[in-house]
Parts: sequence; structure tokens; C-alpha cells
Amino acid sequence: MPHHPDLPPPSEFARLDMARRERTGFGETIYCPGKTNNCLLAILRHFQAADEPVLATRCTPEQAAYVTAQGVPADYDARSRTLVSQWAKMPPLAGRIAVCTGGAADGSVAEEAARTAEFFGAEVERFYDVGVAGIHRLLSQLEAIRQADVVIAVAGMEGALGSGIAGLVEAPVIAVPTSVGYGANFQGLAPLLAMLNSCAEGLTVVNIDNGFGAAAAACRMLRIRERHTDEA
Amino acid sequence: MPHHPDLPPPSEFARLDMARRERTGFGETIYCPGKTNNCLLAILRHFQAADEPVLATRCTPEQAAYVTAQGVPADYDARSRTLVSQWAKMPPLAGRIAVCTGGAADGSVAEEAARTAEFFGAEVERFYDVGVAGIHRLLSQLEAIRQADVVIAVAGMEGALGSGIAGLVEAPVIAVPTSVGYGANFQGLAPLLAMLNSCAEGLTVVNIDNGFGAAAAACRMLRIRERHTDEA
Amino acid sequence: MPHHPDLPPPSEFARLDMARRERTGFGETIYCPGKTNNCLLAILRHFQAADEPVLATRCTPEQAAYVTAQGVPADYDARSRTLVSQWAKMPPLAGRIAVCTGGAADGSVAEEAARTAEFFGAEVERFYDVGVAGIHRLLSQLEAIRQADVVIAVAGMEGALGSGIAGLVEAPVIAVPTSVGYGANFQGLAPLLAMLNSCAEGLTVVNIDNGFGAAAAACRMLRIRERHTDEA
Amino acid sequence: MPHHPDLPPPSEFARLDMARRERTGFGETIYCPGKTNNCLLAILRHFQAADEPVLATRCTPEQAAYVTAQGVPADYDARSRTLVSQWAKMPPLAGRIAVCTGGAADGSVAEEAARTAEFFGAEVERFYDVGVAGIHRLLSQLEAIRQADVVIAVAGMEGALGSGIAGLVEAPVIAVPTSVGYGANFQGLAPLLAMLNSCAEGLTVVNIDNGFGAAAAACRMLRIRERHTDEA
Amino acid sequence: MPHHPDLPPPSEFARLDMARRERTGFGETIYCPGKTNNCLLAILRHFQAADEPVLATRCTPEQAAYVTAQGVPADYDARSRTLVSQWAKMPPLAGRIAVCTGGAADGSVAEEAARTAEFFGAEVERFYDVGVAGIHRLLSQLEAIRQADVVIAVAGMEGALGSGIAGLVEAPVIAVPTSVGYGANFQGLAPLLAMLNSCAEGLTVVNIDNGFGAAAAACRMLRIRERHTDEA
Amino acid sequence: MPHHPDLPPPSEFARLDMARRERTGFGETIYCPGKTNNCLLAILRHFQAADEPVLATRCTPEQAAYVTAQGVPADYDARSRTLVSQWAKMPPLAGRIAVCTGGAADGSVAEEAARTAEFFGAEVERFYDVGVAGIHRLLSQLEAIRQADVVIAVAGMEGALGSGIAGLVEAPVIAVPTSVGYGANFQGLAPLLAMLNSCAEGLTVVNIDNGFGAAAAACRMLRIRERHTDEA
Amino acid sequence: MPHHPDLPPPSEFARLDMARRERTGFGETIYCPGKTNNCLLAILRHFQAADEPVLATRCTPEQAAYVTAQGVPADYDARSRTLVSQWAKMPPLAGRIAVCTGGAADGSVAEEAARTAEFFGAEVERFYDVGVAGIHRLLSQLEAIRQADVVIAVAGMEGALGSGIAGLVEAPVIAVPTSVGYGANFQGLAPLLAMLNSCAEGLTVVNIDNGFGAAAAACRMLRIRERHTDEA
Amino acid sequence: MPHHPDLPPPSEFARLDMARRERTGFGETIYCPGKTNNCLLAILRHFQAADEPVLATRCTPEQAAYVTAQGVPADYDARSRTLVSQWAKMPPLAGRIAVCTGGAADGSVAEEAARTAEFFGAEVERFYDVGVAGIHRLLSQLEAIRQADVVIAVAGMEGALGSGIAGLVEAPVIAVPTSVGYGANFQGLAPLLAMLNSCAEGLTVVNIDNGFGAAAAACRMLRIRERHTDEA
Repeated sequence: MPHHPDLPPPSEFARLDMARRERTGFGETIYCPGKTNNCLLAILRHFQAADEPVLATRCTPEQAAYVTAQGVPADYDARSRTLVSQWAKMPPLAGRIAVCTGGAADGSVAEEAARTAEFFGAEVERFYDVGVAGIHRLLSQLEAIRQADVVIAVAGMEGALGSGIAGLVEAPVIAVPTSVGYGANFQGLAPLLAMLNSCAEGLTVVNIDNGFGAAAAACRMLRIRERHTDEA
Repeated sequence: MPHHPDLPPPSEFARLDMARRERTGFGETIYCPGKTNNCLLAILRHFQAADEPVLATRCTPEQAAYVTAQGVPADYDARSRTLVSQWAKMPPLAGRIAVCTGGAADGSVAEEAARTAEFFGAEVERFYDVGVAGIHRLLSQLEAIRQADVVIAVAGMEGALGSGIAGLVEAPVIAVPTSVGYGANFQGLAPLLAMLNSCAEGLTVVNIDNGFGAAAAACRMLRIRERHTDEA
Repeated sequence: MPHHPDLPPPSEFARLDMARRERTGFGETIYCPGKTNNCLLAILRHFQAADEPVLATRCTPEQAAYVTAQGVPADYDARSRTLVSQWAKMPPLAGRIAVCTGGAADGSVAEEAARTAEFFGAEVERFYDVGVAGIHRLLSQLEAIRQADVVIAVAGMEGALGSGIAGLVEAPVIAVPTSVGYGANFQGLAPLLAMLNSCAEGLTVVNIDNGFGAAAAACRMLRIRERHTDEA
Repeated sequence: MPHHPDLPPPSEFARLDMARRERTGFGETIYCPGKTNNCLLAILRHFQAADEPVLATRCTPEQAAYVTAQGVPADYDARSRTLVSQWAKMPPLAGRIAVCTGGAADGSVAEEAARTAEFFGAEVERFYDVGVAGIHRLLSQLEAIRQADVVIAVAGMEGALGSGIAGLVEAPVIAVPTSVGYGANFQGLAPLLAMLNSCAEGLTVVNIDNGFGAAAAACRMLRIRERHTDEA
Repeated sequence: MPHHPDLPPPSEFARLDMARRERTGFGETIYCPGKTNNCLLAILRHFQAADEPVLATRCTPEQAAYVTAQGVPADYDARSRTLVSQWAKMPPLAGRIAVCTGGAADGSVAEEAARTAEFFGAEVERFYDVGVAGIHRLLSQLEAIRQADVVIAVAGMEGALGSGIAGLVEAPVIAVPTSVGYGANFQGLAPLLAMLNSCAEGLTVVNIDNGFGAAAAACRMLRIRERHTDEA
Repeated sequence: MPHHPDLPPPSEFARLDMARRERTGFGETIYCPGKTNNCLLAILRHFQAADEPVLATRCTPEQAAYVTAQGVPADYDARSRTLVSQWAKMPPLAGRIAVCTGGAADGSVAEEAARTAEFFGAEVERFYDVGVAGIHRLLSQLEAIRQADVVIAVAGMEGALGSGIAGLVEAPVIAVPTSVGYGANFQGLAPLLAMLNSCAEGLTVVNIDNGFGAAAAACRMLRIRERHTDEA
Repeated sequence: MPHHPDLPPPSEFARLDMARRERTGFGETIYCPGKTNNCLLAILRHFQAADEPVLATRCTPEQAAYVTAQGVPADYDARSRTLVSQWAKMPPLAGRIAVCTGGAADGSVAEEAARTAEFFGAEVERFYDVGVAGIHRLLSQLEAIRQADVVIAVAGMEGALGSGIAGLVEAPVIAVPTSVGYGANFQGLAPLLAMLNSCAEGLTVVNIDNGFGAAAAACRMLRIRERHTDEA
Repeated sequence: MPHHPDLPPPSEFARLDMARRERTGFGETIYCPGKTNNCLLAILRHFQAADEPVLATRCTPEQAAYVTAQGVPADYDARSRTLVSQWAKMPPLAGRIAVCTGGAADGSVAEEAARTAEFFGAEVERFYDVGVAGIHRLLSQLEAIRQADVVIAVAGMEGALGSGIAGLVEAPVIAVPTSVGYGANFQGLAPLLAMLNSCAEGLTVVNIDNGFGAAAAACRMLRIRERHTDEA
């Protein structure tokens, strides 16, 4: 499929990295902030022409509306601001990821994580609103969470969810601080520091609001299993 | 008992505030850092002469050794760095204070809180090493903690203890962040921010490592009861 | 009363915690930021159906207009951004809370504290604009403030009000830093640090602009009295 | 083996958590800072009596000398400040961990990671001094690093090692910022922020200088494989 | 050419420094933020009347539209927000500057650098989107970058580009952190600190997003050559 | 008096500025940190030879002992770490400066201010330990403080003294934050921010612990009067 | 003049402090942020009725338009956002204040200082755009600046103007950091820290962008002279 | 010359990079912190055996004494903590570097810069103690400073020296903030921020106290000239 005559060729914006899947195992993703509508459209069409699946993150409703109006077949989710190509899919990735949140307001970051992991081929189960201030909510879901191979714990405010879960499960736990909160939360600094200082062993942390990064890390972990299944 | 002839009169160091007990209900306390041995000795003798009970905080072993060697009757506890006068006591204060810690390393701050509260006349029960990374330790002590009128939650690292307890009890919970930790703990900043951002309702916070302040606040709260008992 | 057919059931947004009043003594509250109009409406109707009183905080005028236009009986106060249900009330809580402010601009945070305390059943008296830069204003109100069982001191700028009051009264004092100020105020950091470092004994602090949390803490304190009245 | 008569029973210091291995899969570890020599000795003997393997971290040479002089059979490594019990071992954990450093000065943190992983039963390969300022050093080791199931990237200064590796391998990469550097390094803040902001997908981060935590996280990841091997 | 009668004389806004080119070798530049449209117009006309070339930075599209609508002959580039006078040019400056970026989103800062350097008379070659997370992109351009006399490395996120390049080339490298990123990027603080802490020798740094300053520094460096050519 | 043969001439260390008194009205001062004993000795002898009065600040007891043992006639005060030459004096400066402190621990900074002002020829009155947590102490001294032409308010902890005084007097008030405190004091950051954000009008601030700078500023202010007395 | 019937009495907003002029020498001022139009109007009318001069700061154009449209006689300056009552004036204050700026963009803060000083009765001379990056601009104005009794130095960016002037004049210098700049300026933190760390003796500092405070401080200083003129 | 039999081969500590001179033009340097005496000795002997010149930075007097006592021929300078090999020299580098300091206390960082540049073959002229608080000192040296091809401006406190010089010379100016100062200097943060925010065009900055890095950058700049001389 040729480029739209009015669009600049993608090489003018960015050196697209079509061989990345081979090198690191990840499908292609686009970080939308700062990209013009036309630039985003051209990149999407480039991948569509190559029949490569692609995920766009931090995509505004306006950007999504523009590219779908131009006929790009894509599924957009406003809460997580993710847009997923419909022309191709990543192969399934064995294993299950639990995505948990401390409170309802952490949902958009959690959905970015969940939808990213699904795009990369993983199976995801959501456990929302299980923060430690009401510990019974977490305990009542514990058995189900323990079934997961990897747990992503998304929390703002004091960010205690990661520690709470990591003390209760054997699986790797990836903590995602969110900018949910106010005052001395300092846009996510409070939960970020809390998570980095967890006294639970073996908790790892990604950037504030970085649901995408947590999912990418979780999928790297799931591939450990795949790799050895292949070996066997 | 007259001042030692070699000692400067206390008025030279600081305007001692002998009427404070009347105004705010607190007995006298001395913050030791920056005070010379002789200065501390003179102040203690001043209160001894007035038969006023007094508590010295952040008192080094050297300071304590010096004043007791000079014959000041006082009880020194090295872990909490507190020195309590033995010539007089504050009247008892009805109610019970639970002092909890997240980990063993928070003990010196917790002891400062506990011994201060005891000096002010309160009854104290200690619940140490009940941090949320091993939530079963906290849950197993919960019924006993619920008996307290006020709870002091002392924790370093990610500081999640305050939220954990405040979500489980009805009593006021005072959180004390400690400087226990390293790296991105930033000398207690991480648990301080976590505690200020707690999603548990009605948690209050004092300065990093401020066991003394937490105990003083707890005693102010206990006096609410006393005040109305007096009324009745 | 059944859910509106167009509204998602509340379980989709958040695990509502209907037993919290039993466990911690607090009525239900909703933190509005990040909630859609429909989500807020569904939660309110859920509580209305259960005849449970509920308080919504950080509620924008638009959110309030939407839910009241849909027939939810609620009292909205724009200054404090609080919305209080009109179908049920919390039982009265014995004792009096003084809410003080340093300057006129701290009023919205102070009102959040005052209205929250009133929602929880407490009696509130307001002492606004009594900051320490004009100490005579504070001194002239001192006798009345001393009548309170708990004092909430709300101040931005240099945040000296908490120390000023705590040095003059026996009751517990809860300091609330506000983001009122500019430049090196750093959105409330200056008064927050000042309050944490108060040399007045037994001052406790909540998050910047957290009038709600201060009121919740004050009510926990008032219950100390109630608890022992029940005992007697 | 009975407790030494002069030693306090461990229950006085801390609630030892002998069931943790079952719950989270980790063997016991002791964080030494703030513990007295006798306290450390008592805890070690407690585990020795139970024939449980144990790892002590941040153990000073003085602490190590004391406990070994008292006859505790343990292997101490001064560079990483780790002390490993000699009476029992954790079972082996399938999979290999690569521990890489940016510069020679990051060695003590890297050794803490490597020795911790070895204590937990994992096989470790070390790749030291492969920082990105001399990218040829990293590239020359790349094939060997790609053999690992998990990579730990330890770096101070500008902390670019994590990004560099994560862009080149498929395995999970755990970045450990170190406090190596000066000036605007701010005790590890610079590499911490750099690692959190990596544009490489799926990098996770632990606290500054937290070699122990990185190893614990790596072992959680290795267990994903074990779990499914068991299943099969 | 006289001032427009409705415009205030430039001396009312600022002491224009018409002799600066002589003293420091730089042509005139205008920093637009905070200037009214009329103020900007008056300054531009002042230079036009003197036939002096001038560069306006951080110029909004609105400002540019206003002054060009008033007939000022100028070339405006929206991406870099730079406006360049068309009535006169700086003399050419021997030597070549390479402007590199880590990611596509750093383009506006890079263009400010490139256009500034071109305004000052230098030859510029652009190497965009060569960040270290895909090191092959940088390596494939290395020979071309090595031809430059000075390299400007523009990067947000973790800011590793500067170190990556400085370890591979002999020329001076000027690193420009950008505010591209989110969360713990803290508006460019993360790449700023990373660049200041580079372990590559002899990297220098300018302010966040300061493409202009990097270009000015690069031109100072190019003049070293000119100076000695003149000598010879 | 000739230089000691073993000492390097002062011109090797620093360009001494013997004409400064003429230009800015200040006598000579030496900032001791980083200076070797011999370097300090040489500078002092240089001024002694010129019969110029000189003040050395941040002078350690060891430095003071060394230079006085070498026969330099100087008065050293260990609390304020100031050393004042005895061979000459600055002319008296009309007006009075009040130096106030919040607590006893602020004394060393206050003494640096007081002794500096006395060195510059001013009359100083000390009001120590009058902090706002015991407002009656300040009020009882108020009439005397009001006699001063300039007030220096030295305080650590929450730093409220400056605001307290500035709301009560007409004279210029210079606030000096001190590093007295712990935890969230952050080495004087808390009182520094509080003082900068004072709601009292016309408070000015100097650096943390900078008693010297406050005195220098106060003396600049006193010279306003002198200047116009000269005129008259 | 009675209150407008529709307006709430001022006592509802704030405890107006009509006796402040007597106590501290300052006329009345209103800080506008957070005040409704009606609230501002009521306060202004209150002072008008008492024939007291009043200054409103940080007054938006909308606020100004509203109150003047309601017939309040006042002079508004949009650049400095100050509104000055026209019904009464403060008595003149002997002495002259020089207001200097580093760059043209600091003008709004400088004008707030200048107009505030004029409101308080002082004579002001403006020296704008004399920053140290072009030191000849400052040196050419030096003789005129030296005529002032007090100098206010307003600067953003690196904030070097205060040091530059304080090293050249005898008068008190008050430095005002501004939030002019970008990137690592951090909204005025950079010049604030620079000014606090000035190596020029006796520089004092006010809050970022606080032109009002600088003028108030300058007027306190001018009164030193007046006080002694009265005495004589 | 063979390795000492007791010493570990250097390959055990770090991958030495003997080809760096070819790649980046720099001779070898050793960063001493964290290296044991024996490790440092082994590395030095390695270079001595290869007859490669080498510079060791941040070398303590103890480290220097150890290696010279072992017979390594090296010149140690205690002020700058640099140790320079005596067995070989870098070839001379055409051009002159001016190293300037703001105050005497910046001398150790300046000497690190000067001795590093001399090690790399450049000619250096020192201009110490020419800070802007006494601008006449800088102006009196200006003609000599203007002779340099590159200027290094070393300053602590408010860090204004870089701006001051960059506004007066044509050459590239590299600013080095130092940690000289106290209080709100925050270990060099204040001059670092000031230098990054300089309004002088084309100032570049290196890390706090990084005299080595400034010299390395200056030498990269001097090579621009050499490169084109070679061409010619």
C-alpha cells in the first residue's frame, strides 16, 4: 500500500525500527505526544503496509479520531489512551499477568498496562481497587492473584500496594506509581519513593504513570518461560 | 538545693518556661543537641530544685554519663537517648497508647515515643516489627492494638504501616516516619511523603524521627477524655 | 431504588466498602477527581438506595450540577467543593472542633475541614483570619479557641499558625498546610515543612490542602471521649 | 543448639518470620544496620539451630568478625558486605543471571547482587566495567550477556547502562542505580532518574545501591520457569 | 527608516546592545517571551533600520504572524519557534556542526539549535533519532558525525545520547537536555542530571531545552579556528 | 612589620581587596574554610602591617589557636567561630541592632551576627530564646526590641520568629534561618522557605546560618542614617 | 459611605486590620488572588469610607475592570497588576529607592516594587535592563544608582544582578528573584539560590517575584532616617 | 616491566581501554575513589610498562604516598589531588586555556582543571580570585583573559563568574560550579543552576567540582584548530 501523496515519508520524522521485534522480542509501538496528526497517520500506514501489528500510546482522542477517520483500522480506548492496530496481531505469549490497582483513580494507567500486555500477546486478569487502606479487599482476592506469573501493582497516593502484594505472592511484582493524589504527592513522587523503598523483597519499579513500561517488563519476564519451553 | 558555684545560672542559656505545664498541660522537656554538659547540668538542677519532673531528649551517652556522675538522679535509656528525672513524676493520664513499628530498626524512635508518653503519665503498650510487608504479623496483633485509645505507628522504608493500621482501627493514628533506609529513602523523605499521602482517613503525621512529638500529640488527645471526665 | 438502566453498576468502577463505618467509625466518602459524571451518579444512587449518608469531596461545580439535575438530593458548597447527601445523617459526635485559618485565602480548605467534620456529626466553630503576622487577632480569640476539644489550624504562606496556637492551648492541634502563596512557597511545601518542624509540642500535620483528612483525624480524636462515655 | 546464656532471645528484637520461604519463596535474610553485635549473633544462632540458610546484608567487617569469632560458621565478603551461612544451602534455582556494571566503582553493589542471587540458588555470570561511554566494551560481551535469563545492570554516574543493554537483549533487565559519582549525582539520584526514564522498553528499577533487591527480583523471575516446569 | 509613529521607541523597553557583535562576536537576538507584539515589532524595525541581522527565539506563531503582517521581512519556523530577519545575514563561519537527537520528540529543540547556528553563519548537518536505546542507529551514522567540528546532542528521557556520542568522537560535544518525557523526568531534570554526570570525558551541558545556547556555544568553538586562520 | 620568612606572600592566595572599605563601607573580613593555617596567618599579618581592622569568620578553634600562638593579637569566640583583630577598630556606627533568637540552639549563628555588627562599629542588644511557640516570651521583650533601628531574627525549626517580630515592629527585620532541627528541616530549608513566604510585610532573608551576612546588611541600613546626618 | 446593599460586610471575609499603620507604619494592602469580585469591591469601599489609602496587588485586569466599573476611584497598572486608591495618599517618606532589573522581562515584578514604594510615599528611580551579562550597562548607570538610599535589584535567569550591585554600592541592596527563565530555572529557584549565596556582603533577599515585599522592606529602611530626623 | 608478583592483573578490576587515545584523542586517566592502593598501583604499572602517560584524579595523599613509595615515578599535587605520570608525556596541543576562579576557595577545583589541561598538552594561564562581587578585579585582568582560546570559569557561592566572563569575551567559556559555600548552596546546586541559567550566550557547564571534565572539554575544543591545521 503506497503512502498517501500528501504525507511526508516516515523517514523524515524518525528512523523507524522495523527489525526491533527480532532483536528484543517486542512489536512496534508509537509514543504519540509531539507527533502531528499527519505524522502519526503516515507511521501507522507504514506499518499497515508491512502488515506489522502496532500499538500507539498516549494517543489523544483527537489523534485517534483523525487516523480512524482516514480509514486506519484501529481500536481506540479513551481511558488508557491506547490505539491498537486491527490488521495484524502479535503471537500469543504463554503465561498470565495480574494487573492490580490501589484505587479507582489509578484505572487509566492500569488499563494502559493491561492493553499493552494484551497487544504483546499475554493473557491479563484485572484486580482493581484493592489498596491496602482496606486490606480485606486485597486479602479476598489473594488466591486469584497468586495464580498469575507476573503481577503489576498500580497505585498513587502512598503507593503501598506494591509492598502489600509482594509480601504475599511468589511471582515477580512490578510496581507502577501513579500521579493520582495532590499536595505532597508531588505528581507521583510520593508513591515512586515508597515503591523504591519497599521492604518487600524483589519489588521492581517503573516510571510514574508508565503502564506501558510495566507491561513490556512483564512480557520480558513471561518470555523466560517460553525460551525454555522452546529449549525443551 | 543551690546551684553549683561553678555553673552559670540557667537564665544565661535560655528563658526557662516553668509555667508551661499550666498553659499547655505538658511537663518540662529539654532538647539536648547543642547544649554543653554544664548547661544541661544547670538546667536539670534548676528543675530538681523546683521539684519539677523533667525529660531530656536526644541526650547522648556522654551527656547522660556526665550529669549522673555529678549526682543528678536520672534514668537514662541509650536506645531512645532519653533521660528522665527521678525526683518527681507527672500525674497519671487515663487511657492507653499503642506504639507500633514496621521493623526492628525503627526501635529507637519508637522507644523515644514510648518513654515520652510514659513520662507524661500515659500507659503504653509496644507492638514492634508488625510492618505491612508481612501483613500476617499485623493482623495477628490487631485485636490488642484496637484496645488502645491512640496508636503511634513508627516506620521507615516505604512507611506503609500508618495506612495499614489506620484502615483497621477506629482510634486516632499518629504516623512517625523514620530515617531508616538508604538510597531513595532520602533520610526519611520517602516514608514522610507516603504517610502524608495515605489514603486511610484521618492519619496525622509528625516530623521524621520525632518520637517525642508523636507522644506529646497522643497525650494531648488523651486529655480530651480527662477534660470531660472532670466535667462529669 | 434500582440503578438507572443506562448506568453501569458501581461494582465496575470500584469495590464499594459498605462495612467501613463498622470497622473504622467513618461514614462513606467519595473522592471525585477522575470520576465521570455517570460514575459519580451511580455511586451516589447506590448509597441513596442503601440509605447511607455520603460525602463527596473535590467535587466540581459541573459534577454537582449534573448529579443534582438528575434528582440526587444533595447540598453542594462551591467554596469547599463538598457535596453532602440529604437522605440520611451520621449520628452526632460529642465534642467541639475549632477550625482556624491564617488568612482569608485559606478559606476553601478550612471549609472542606469544617463541612467534613459536620458531616461526621461534630460541632464546629470557625475562627478565620487569625494568622501570626497580626498576633493580636489570634490573642483576641484565644479564650474561645481554648473551649474546643480539637483545633484544626489551616495556613499557607509560612504556616506559622499551627505553632502559634499549639503553644497556647492544651487540646490536640492538627495543622493543615495550604497551597496558598507563590514563588518559594512551592505549592504548599513551605508551610508543610514549617508545620512538621514546629517547636510547639504535639502538633500533628496532614497533607497540603487536605481539609478532609484533618476533619477525619479530629473526629477520630473526639471518639476517644465517646468510647469512654460508653464504657462508663 | 541452645542459645548462648548471655544472649537475649531473638523474640525480643524482632518477630522472626520463619515461614516466609513457604509464602514468598525466599530464604531468610537479615538487614544488619542498627543491630548490635549480640542481636545479630542471636539471630544467626536461631537460624543455625533451625538449620535454615540465612544471608546477612550491609554487614560491617566488625559485625562479621564478631560473629565468626563467636564460632558462627559463615562466609563473609568485605566488598559486598554480605555474610552467608555455611550450615545449609538453598536448593538450586534453574536459569542464569548476568550481573553487569558500568564502571569498576560499581563493584560492591554488583557483588551484593551476585552473592545474593547465588545464596538464593541461582547461577550468576559477571560482566563488569561495560559502560556505554566505551560502547565497544559492551558490544564485545553482548553474545554472552544474551545467554542470561535475567540481566542486572548496575551503574552510577549517568546510569545509561540499563538503557544500553535493554535495547540489545530480549531478557528482563533490572537496573540498579548506584551512589557512585559526585556533585550533581546527588547520591545516586541522577542514575535513578535516568533509569526510570529509559526509552528502552520494559526496564525495571530498584532502589539506589540495592543489589540485594535486584537479585531478589531476578530470582522471582527465574521461578516463573520453575513453576511451569513443575506443572509440566 | 523611521519608527512607526504609534510605536514606543525601543529605548523604553530595554537597553539595546548594538555593539555586542563587536564585543562577543554574536549577532543580535531577541528572547520573545513577555514581549508585547508592538514591543517586538519596534525592536525588529530598529534592527532593520540599522541593517543588522537579528534572530528572535521562542517566538509564538501569533507574534510571528503579527510582525510579518506589519511588513517585517522575516522567515518563521513554527517547529523551532525561531524568526530570522531577511534583510541582512551574518558572515559565514568556517566549520561544520552536527545536530543529533535521541528521539523524534526532541526535534523542536534541535531545530532551534540548528537554525540558530545557521543564523550565526555556520554549516549544520542534522542526525535525528539516533538514541542509544537502538544503538545501531547511532553506529550507522557514526562516520558522518565524526566529520563535524562540534557535535550538539539533544535528548530527553534518560539523556544518554551525549555520553554515547562523546565516547565515540574526538570533537567537542554539547549536550542539550530536553523536557521530553513524563513522570520522574521532572520536566527535563532527569536528562540534565544524566548529562552532567556523564562518564564520557569532556561533555559540556546547557540548560534544559536550550537549543539556542548550544548553538551559540558551538559557534564560539568554531571561532577558535577562524581566529588562528586570521593569524596565519 | 615584615612577612614571616617562611610564609608565602598573600598575593599568592588571593587578590586582597584593601580598598573595599572605601567602595562599600565595609572593613575587611576573611572567610576561613579551606584556608591553611599559614595562609590565614599571612593574611592576618598583612592587615596587621597595614593597621587595618579585620574579622575572620567560620574560624575553627585550631585555626584560632595557631594564629594566636604565632603572636597575632586577636580575640577569638568559640561559639560564633569569629576572630577579631585587636590592633585597630572600625569607627562607631550610629544606631542600635537587636539580635533575637527563637531558641537556645540558634545562639552560635546569633553570636556571629552580633559580633560582626560590633566589629563594624554598631551597638548590639541581644534578645535570646524568644520564639513564637511561647509567644509571651516575645511579647514581654517587645518594648525593648522596638527601640532598635534594625532587628535580626535568628531561628531554626519552623522559622516563625521573623514573621512574629515583623508584624509587631516598624524597623527593618532581617531573618536568618538556621540549620537547627532535624528530619524534614533539611538542614535549614524549612525555616528558609518559611521566612521567604512570611505574610509579614517587608521581611528580608539571608542564607541559612549566615549571621555574618545579616549583620553586614544591618550595617548597610544603619548607614542610611549616617549619610543623611553627614548631609545635614 | 454605606456598604452597597448587595455586598456582604467585609467582616465576613477577613478581619480587616485598620490599626496596622500605627503598629508597623504600613498603609493597608490587599492581596487579590482568591478574592471574588464582590469581596474585593466590599473591602475597597470599606477603606474608601474610612478615607484610608489602599493598595491592591496581584489584581487581574478583570478584577480591576469590575471595581472601577462599580465606581471605585482607583488607578490600575496592568504590567504590575497593582491598583492604587485615588481617594487618599500616604504621607511622603524621605529618601530615594533605586529599582534595577537584569532584563526587560523582569519589568512586571520591578513595577510592582516601584509602584508599591510610591504608594508608601517614597521617591523611586528606575534602572531597567542593566544585567551583568553586559556589565557596561550597569557600570554606565553606577553613579546614579549610588545616589539611592536603598537599591532593589530584580533579576531572573542566573540572578547575578544583586551581587553585581552590592559589590559596587554602600546602600542596602534587596534582591528579588523572578520566575523569568525556563528549564533549570525551576520557576525562580535558580536566581533565588544565587541571591542567597551571594558573596557580596549584606545582600538580603525576598520571595520569588515579590516586588511588593521588596518595596515594603525598602520603606522600613527609609524610616530609620525619618525616625532619627524626628528625634533631632 | 613485569607486574609485581603480589598484585592482581589489572584485567581483574576493570577493562582497561588502551586504545582510547586513538578513538577520542584523550590520554588515559584513572578515577581513584573506591580503588584500593594495590589496585591503583597495578593500573599505574600497567601504563608504565606500556610507556603510556596517565593522570590519576581525586587521588588522596595516602594513595599517592603509597604508589610513590612503591617506586612509581609520579608527580602529586595535594591541592588538586592529581597525580601525573613522569615516564611519558602527551604531545603538546596548540592553543591557550585561561583558568579563572571566583574566590580563593575554588582553587582546588581550578587546579584540577589546570593540571589536567597541562597533562593533555595544553598551555594554561591562571587568573584566580576575580569574582564579580569585586568586578574591578575581573576587569583589570580582562585583556589577558581575552588572549585565551578557551576560558574555564570556576566558581562556587552564587556562580556569577561564568556569566560575567562570557559577556566580555569571544572565546568559548566552560563554567565549573564548585561546592564552595554553605546553607542554601546545597553542595554546589546554587552555582550549578545559576550557570545553567546564564543570560550570557553560549556558556556551557560541567558537573559540580568537575575541574577534570572542564579541562577535557577545553582540550576537545583546542583540537578543532589542530585538525584544520593538519588539513592545511
